[in-house]
Amino acid sequence: MDSISKAAFRRLPRYHQILNAYEAVGREYISSRELSEILEINETLVRKDMADLKIRGRQNQGYGISALRARIEDFLGLQEITEALVVGGGHLGTALATYPGFEHYGLKIVGVFDDDPQKIGTKIGGHSVLSVNRLAAVIQKKNIKLIILTVPRHVAKEVTEVAVNAGVLAIWNFTPCELNVPSGVKVRNEQIIGGFMALSYYLKNVTGSPDDNGE
Amino acid sequence: MDSISKAAFRRLPRYHQILNAYEAVGREYISSRELSEILEINETLVRKDMADLKIRGRQNQGYGISALRARIEDFLGLQEITEALVVGGGHLGTALATYPGFEHYGLKIVGVFDDDPQKIGTKIGGHSVLSVNRLAAVIQKKNIKLIILTVPRHVAKEVTEVAVNAGVLAIWNFTPCELNVPSGVKVRNEQIIGGFMALSYYLKNVTGSPDDNGE
Repeated sequence: MDSISKAAFRRLPRYHQILNAYEAVGREYISSRELSEILEINETLVRKDMADLKIRGRQNQGYGISALRARIEDFLGLQEITEALVVGGGHLGTALATYPGFEHYGLKIVGVFDDDPQKIGTKIGGHSVLSVNRLAAVIQKKNIKLIILTVPRHVAKEVTEVAVNAGVLAIWNFTPCELNVPSGVKVRNEQIIGGFMALSYYLKNVTGSPDDNGE
Repeated sequence: MDSISKAAFRRLPRYHQILNAYEAVGREYISSRELSEILEINETLVRKDMADLKIRGRQNQGYGISALRARIEDFLGLQEITEALVVGGGHLGTALATYPGFEHYGLKIVGVFDDDPQKIGTKIGGHSVLSVNRLAAVIQKKNIKLIILTVPRHVAKEVTEVAVNAGVLAIWNFTPCELNVPSGVKVRNEQIIGGFMALSYYLKNVTGSPDDNGE
């Protein structure tokens, strides 16, 4: 993974979000201390991450926000366009297919697929929903490397197989399924429930529920 | 954070997901080696996490799946019911308000709010959408501690302030905004784009895009 640690890599999206927020209010510099406080990590770690990214701060000013943001985007390949297909046209698939923020990151949704005859042919985010039977053909024709998977649990494996056989190399998995893919194919499991688990733990401990056994 | 590390804490949702997947196919035990391979972490780390959770494996069998799952659920407070309100009835809010999996984790959506007169009064997931003007009153009346925030960027701060003043202690934030909250209030930022960033990096490096400068 290049020259940065896995943990640093996982922090890049948060750095990027913070930089955007600061830039939106007109800030040009951000200090390692500010970053460390927002992220609730040690300032030394922030400085190390920046050094790994080959970003240098200025005395008394901090890091130039636009340069740092551009460096992260370049590092992650966000300045190139990545075309993707959304498979599953339910509420979540629709939310993802119509999410306005993706374009800023180079992510371009170029098709939406579903197996429901009532949905096929309707429009989602400017795309005519296509039958999932045509998924492999579209992947091959457009040379698609990424699919966004929001199908029901019972078809997740089948769709994955079809997509991988057609040449997909990356799967953004919003289903709760563990997907088996050949080596060389990357799956990112988006476990939305994980966020709730952290909050549940917080609430359990802060509100001192009567069921809490004090562990 | 109790007796487990922050990193171990972050692994709990993934452990939980894997246990569910194994349980669904009838498995009763899982080994530290299997967990380590799926999570792509060192087996020693898995063993340490299990020890921290006070879960002991059996020689040649591994960890009992249902006991481990119950332990994680108890640790995180998932066996109690947490009532939450969804604020923002767009596609993402609708997806979250109607997500069938949340109940398994004790998360119960008890109301949906929006500021669009066209949406107020319509049904989302069995709930009549209420005006966001009534948010504070409902939080107080039902003693709600958690809101799920899917509003547009420009109202995120205002809604947060209203909710916190009304007594909310945890915010599951699906907006791209950094929220300022008083100490004692926990925000979980759900940065969906972070998942794409990891995949983008993978695709950039595996497909060897022409823009790649070989760093």
